[in-house]
Amino acid sequence: MAGSSLGTIYRITSWGETHGKGVGVVVDGCPAGLSLSEEDIQVYLDRRKPGQSRFTTKRKEGDQVEILSGVFEGRTTGTPISLVVYNKDQKSKDYSEIANVYRPGHADYTFDRKYGFRDYRGGGRSSGRETIARTAAGAIAAKVLKEMGIEVYAYTRSIGPVTVDPDLFDPSIRDQNALYMPDEKAAREAEAYLDQKIKEMDSSGGVVECIISGMPVGVGEPVFDKLSSSLGKAILSIGAVKGFEIGDGFAAAQSVGSVNNDAFVMTCGSSESVNKEASEITEESEDSANKEADERKAGHVVKKTNHAGGILGGMSDGSDIIFRAAFKPTPSIARKQETVTRDGENAEIEIHGRHDPIIVPRAVVVVETMAAVTLLDLLLVNMSSRLDRVKEFYHKNE
Amino acid sequence: MAGSSLGTIYRITSWGETHGKGVGVVVDGCPAGLSLSEEDIQVYLDRRKPGQSRFTTKRKEGDQVEILSGVFEGRTTGTPISLVVYNKDQKSKDYSEIANVYRPGHADYTFDRKYGFRDYRGGGRSSGRETIARTAAGAIAAKVLKEMGIEVYAYTRSIGPVTVDPDLFDPSIRDQNALYMPDEKAAREAEAYLDQKIKEMDSSGGVVECIISGMPVGVGEPVFDKLSSSLGKAILSIGAVKGFEIGDGFAAAQSVGSVNNDAFVMTCGSSESVNKEASEITEESEDSANKEADERKAGHVVKKTNHAGGILGGMSDGSDIIFRAAFKPTPSIARKQETVTRDGENAEIEIHGRHDPIIVPRAVVVVETMAAVTLLDLLLVNMSSRLDRVKEFYHKNE
Amino acid sequence: MAGSSLGTIYRITSWGETHGKGVGVVVDGCPAGLSLSEEDIQVYLDRRKPGQSRFTTKRKEGDQVEILSGVFEGRTTGTPISLVVYNKDQKSKDYSEIANVYRPGHADYTFDRKYGFRDYRGGGRSSGRETIARTAAGAIAAKVLKEMGIEVYAYTRSIGPVTVDPDLFDPSIRDQNALYMPDEKAAREAEAYLDQKIKEMDSSGGVVECIISGMPVGVGEPVFDKLSSSLGKAILSIGAVKGFEIGDGFAAAQSVGSVNNDAFVMTCGSSESVNKEASEITEESEDSANKEADERKAGHVVKKTNHAGGILGGMSDGSDIIFRAAFKPTPSIARKQETVTRDGENAEIEIHGRHDPIIVPRAVVVVETMAAVTLLDLLLVNMSSRLDRVKEFYHKNE
Amino acid sequence: MAGSSLGTIYRITSWGETHGKGVGVVVDGCPAGLSLSEEDIQVYLDRRKPGQSRFTTKRKEGDQVEILSGVFEGRTTGTPISLVVYNKDQKSKDYSEIANVYRPGHADYTFDRKYGFRDYRGGGRSSGRETIARTAAGAIAAKVLKEMGIEVYAYTRSIGPVTVDPDLFDPSIRDQNALYMPDEKAAREAEAYLDQKIKEMDSSGGVVECIISGMPVGVGEPVFDKLSSSLGKAILSIGAVKGFEIGDGFAAAQSVGSVNNDAFVMTCGSSESVNKEASEITEESEDSANKEADERKAGHVVKKTNHAGGILGGMSDGSDIIFRAAFKPTPSIARKQETVTRDGENAEIEIHGRHDPIIVPRAVVVVETMAAVTLLDLLLVNMSSRLDRVKEFYHKNE
Repeated sequence: MAGSSLGTIYRITSWGETHGKGVGVVVDGCPAGLSLSEEDIQVYLDRRKPGQSRFTTKRKEGDQVEILSGVFEGRTTGTPISLVVYNKDQKSKDYSEIANVYRPGHADYTFDRKYGFRDYRGGGRSSGRETIARTAAGAIAAKVLKEMGIEVYAYTRSIGPVTVDPDLFDPSIRDQNALYMPDEKAAREAEAYLDQKIKEMDSSGGVVECIISGMPVGVGEPVFDKLSSSLGKAILSIGAVKGFEIGDGFAAAQSVGSVNNDAFVMTCGSSESVNKEASEITEESEDSANKEADERKAGHVVKKTNHAGGILGGMSDGSDIIFRAAFKPTPSIARKQETVTRDGENAEIEIHGRHDPIIVPRAVVVVETMAAVTLLDLLLVNMSSRLDRVKEFYHKNE
Repeated sequence: MAGSSLGTIYRITSWGETHGKGVGVVVDGCPAGLSLSEEDIQVYLDRRKPGQSRFTTKRKEGDQVEILSGVFEGRTTGTPISLVVYNKDQKSKDYSEIANVYRPGHADYTFDRKYGFRDYRGGGRSSGRETIARTAAGAIAAKVLKEMGIEVYAYTRSIGPVTVDPDLFDPSIRDQNALYMPDEKAAREAEAYLDQKIKEMDSSGGVVECIISGMPVGVGEPVFDKLSSSLGKAILSIGAVKGFEIGDGFAAAQSVGSVNNDAFVMTCGSSESVNKEASEITEESEDSANKEADERKAGHVVKKTNHAGGILGGMSDGSDIIFRAAFKPTPSIARKQETVTRDGENAEIEIHGRHDPIIVPRAVVVVETMAAVTLLDLLLVNMSSRLDRVKEFYHKNE
Repeated sequence: MAGSSLGTIYRITSWGETHGKGVGVVVDGCPAGLSLSEEDIQVYLDRRKPGQSRFTTKRKEGDQVEILSGVFEGRTTGTPISLVVYNKDQKSKDYSEIANVYRPGHADYTFDRKYGFRDYRGGGRSSGRETIARTAAGAIAAKVLKEMGIEVYAYTRSIGPVTVDPDLFDPSIRDQNALYMPDEKAAREAEAYLDQKIKEMDSSGGVVECIISGMPVGVGEPVFDKLSSSLGKAILSIGAVKGFEIGDGFAAAQSVGSVNNDAFVMTCGSSESVNKEASEITEESEDSANKEADERKAGHVVKKTNHAGGILGGMSDGSDIIFRAAFKPTPSIARKQETVTRDGENAEIEIHGRHDPIIVPRAVVVVETMAAVTLLDLLLVNMSSRLDRVKEFYHKNE
Repeated sequence: MAGSSLGTIYRITSWGETHGKGVGVVVDGCPAGLSLSEEDIQVYLDRRKPGQSRFTTKRKEGDQVEILSGVFEGRTTGTPISLVVYNKDQKSKDYSEIANVYRPGHADYTFDRKYGFRDYRGGGRSSGRETIARTAAGAIAAKVLKEMGIEVYAYTRSIGPVTVDPDLFDPSIRDQNALYMPDEKAAREAEAYLDQKIKEMDSSGGVVECIISGMPVGVGEPVFDKLSSSLGKAILSIGAVKGFEIGDGFAAAQSVGSVNNDAFVMTCGSSESVNKEASEITEESEDSANKEADERKAGHVVKKTNHAGGILGGMSDGSDIIFRAAFKPTPSIARKQETVTRDGENAEIEIHGRHDPIIVPRAVVVVETMAAVTLLDLLLVNMSSRLDRVKEFYHKNE
């Protein structure tokens, strides 16, 4: 396993290099019957497409996705969905100078040491273009989630020193600026900061935050495949991500239990309305109501705060799931840098060409889709957690 | 898959609850021929044992590990190693009050919702006692790593607001205080802070840092099973961990490329000495030297700084691997907290009994061993990365 | 992965050696809420226990199973179920002579070559005692299946040249003879045959057949994880199994399509009753009936014959699933055999001690339980095959 | 996991339908540095191509494979190799009649029941065209094996009642007849038999045998991932395979231990030459010789017979690995058959169009390549079986 697959039931397998013929992904385990078109996927890919502003690379890839299998008459068939985006714009010569020199902050050196040689035309598998596969696979997952009432929303929370102001945060305006910052003031400041970095032939890091609403309670497995650890793996596997936190994250390490613990409460007027609802149900169907009764009540449990970020014991707790990912600055900078050659000589390098001064805006959709892949997989795994539900499922569907 | 297994080749399967008969782990895929005794594992378990200071619970578990299989005449046989720690001190009545009430910050509510009911005697699988399985499995991994020249060292970096001073950091003194802080001054301050928290019937969070030295270059798989994402998953699967970062982590998000990029350089006198070394080798054995030549040179590549934390493109880069984990405050506090009952009534709870005001010191060894499990697994997976090495391996060993 | 785990959702991990401390298994992914006691498992283990007749070894192991985790107040909790059978009767000296000699037909030689040495006290992991783990894990699976209306029934179909007569086959009498042959006449002949083999210091092979009734249609995944290939892997992983076939199996290779194809027909009076049933449903609830209508009708499809053995395209087709496993003769025989020593000298060996002249009768329950493990796993995996059912599941259980 | 992936380290993921855009496979975990061209794969695909004789379908697919990723400058890079064969000849109308009728012996009915609907244009995923993915992925594995000195050779052993005569068996002439039978006399008889079946609008089953030479000893994992069970799963996952046996297989069930056990012997003059060889080595390099000494001797162990088919205890034993697969007759026959419609009506069907009267000849290469995939995967997994070899590997390659 060279680690190009992720997931247990909803399982994706990524392939392709930045300067090869294309990039693609095979999605295995997507439930049958989902209405799916290339357009459903394309809208996600367009969000990570380069060439959309002065902060993204000038490569004019069409990045048109093609569905090669797994969809018949507009619906998924339950069999593997193969997606491909052919590379159109392959100026390999742009990269010829770096064949023999290790770019600082890139995977050139580690690739050479692991495999004995590397595809030196750009980053190969370590290129940002590999995220096309993730985004395409996650677009499908996100569509399934949407049908289940689950929304995954990511945005640029900070760029360098500029952070979205919680008071100005307006999710609906995220896509109105090239930085995907849902706060126009912060966006303008960040743009100014990035212009400065470009001038300095430098680059910037940033933070993406992701908010998931509508998750059923109890999704995630209690030990190694926690919702938190699974999300962590998925997000930390995105190139350039150096940190991941759930809820209060690192701030929780400086907090105290009496603050960090989220109190449980019944929703306003809950015990009454729950009883009422339960009794109504009882009139309709005595025994199914009984067995579901305390669960229904439990359904009205809420947390007064959400320091936990929607996950308790590795399982979703019904609150919004909130996590953040820290992205390092783009390593490709035009400034002169010290490095070494493949032959073991000290050298200097200036990386010109088409590179974003910041990865974060284009990574927003990647975070969103990788989260969707993880959530859907754990939702499907979770279906067998209770014997009564398994029995009912097969009783009903036989 | 209820997610109780982790790893591809070195694969561990954890079982057991805090108030059941015991906790154990099956280690599958440990290479044959490792000298292994119960004592090798016990020294790690003793580091997480409760009852060692006023900051850890009063439970006096012996926590004696027993090897049930996989070792013959003092050496591992290559077959699964089954380890068990029987529970000795099961005061279930301590917990009887919580059967019907959801403790804030705990997994009681999510367990009930996922499975329909739960083992209400303590945290069940979500208890800190589950980490016995991780520690035992990781102790074996750590021994293998040691034989390969790889050291994994974790320590308490901060407790609440108190952080180890880099200038006073002395790894050798870590075990001289109950908090596993390798800085005596910080340890004393942290103790005072914790005494205050105990007085306030409160608890504290903290940060563990882990440093790995001696890793070969190129370990980790480039896409989903990166060294960083695999470590992230392993560490984020430890209960109470809310954040994970590699190298500069979240600070990198505020940095710029010209600072964050680590320059490569040849080690002092390198290009000469490399050439010399290469030629000496040539004299001994012409053709093996040739095929290894540029690799040897590459072997002397180092990074001038280590903002990356030893990982580039998801693969080890030869520098120390450095990561940090943020732990939330212990959720069990004696202070009165709002919550709800299983039956959907608002309620209050005070959690008395045996609880640490801080999880971090006992978690240090858990972080260390989970890292060891991950590193060893990826080292074994990495053995098949190059065809020439695979062929040489079988040619030699046939 | 040293391959000691099997399954995706219902996943079992086996450990232990014949002359170590014991043999055990961890069952991960068993749905919560199953009523489970040690007795439920013990009845299966008792069927494979040695010392029950003159055809099974004289070892008087109690083989008492103990549940160490995953069950609370008599029900499974959804967390891993750890089972152990401690070894009681460890006469290692019986085996001391074979430490340096490779027994023909055994794994001694291959173990030594793979791992560099072996636990020479008996077969180690290759011993028949390893099947305790399989049987215990499968007993739980079989109980779940029973609750879903699925029965798994295996029996001794042939011993050497003696085969059960289809006309005399009576499943209810299987357990009335030590050979588990559901045909008294064949059982008596087989006993005579085995007595002869014992006299000749020889052993016999045989065939186990397994019949599964009540399986829902559509279980099994269409490509690599077919129901047939998954059953094949599980059964071929039992020591001494050298062949596996589904339905007509090898006989199908000599057949023709017009015979081997199983015609589909609607069950007697079906189209009418189906229509009637469908219309009744329509009266109750218009739109759910519509969407389920053709499925209901399809539910009355049956095959006129069952050459396919209940599997079409790798998925269950609603007919009984029928497969057979061929077991080689017990390799341990008292007769003098040629072999070599660990030091590379030619040698002779006579294997005395406690060995069955036939493996098959004790293997019947192993086949049955391994089938149960496989069926349950694929049933759980299958729950996410259709989006409408996934949505309905979460809608209903939220 | 919809089961479209197979393998642990060398892992293949298959996608595509017979009447979709194409069929493809992603190969993850192929070691870097293998010289690989499309031609290497094409020669295998050409062996399963239709339209080559009167016994294979008339579809004139070019079946040209394209490598989309994972190969750079003619060598594998260690990253996933994506292969695609686009469908050229899609006469969907040929199949329009079967949209609403279940073909006996096909997966139409089970697909509909599992997924709610199906791609009714041909067999979809259950079509023989899916084996393009297997063959392409296995061609790469076979090339790696060849470089390691391992040959995988499959052939048509029987067609209906006609079986290759062991005395006339000549592996070198296999490809000289359209049936891939390495016995000209049997081939002519089988052709006559098939002509008769075509005349009768019927079809035939058959048996493929596979022989693997040059395998190192000790490959395969001792419990669930035995070499035998892994091969069994891979082969039984090929559509139409109903039986699998290793070595003597089902015949072993009728045999006795004294016959079925394969005696071990040292090769001719072995103990002397082994000693001599060992001492020579000792002169060169004392300590490496010592540690390898008894292994070298063991290297000269051979079995006098091979009833075991090259596998003992689930691991390769150094003899040729021999297995057989039973294929059912092609289910598509022109003769009138009873069946039912999707709407639950009894019906009749005649399947005209392009169908082979026998699957076996085209399946020979599929068996061969699926075996190659399995062997290579287990060879790579096996590299970590011994600690001394792991340490030496990293010591040498660091």
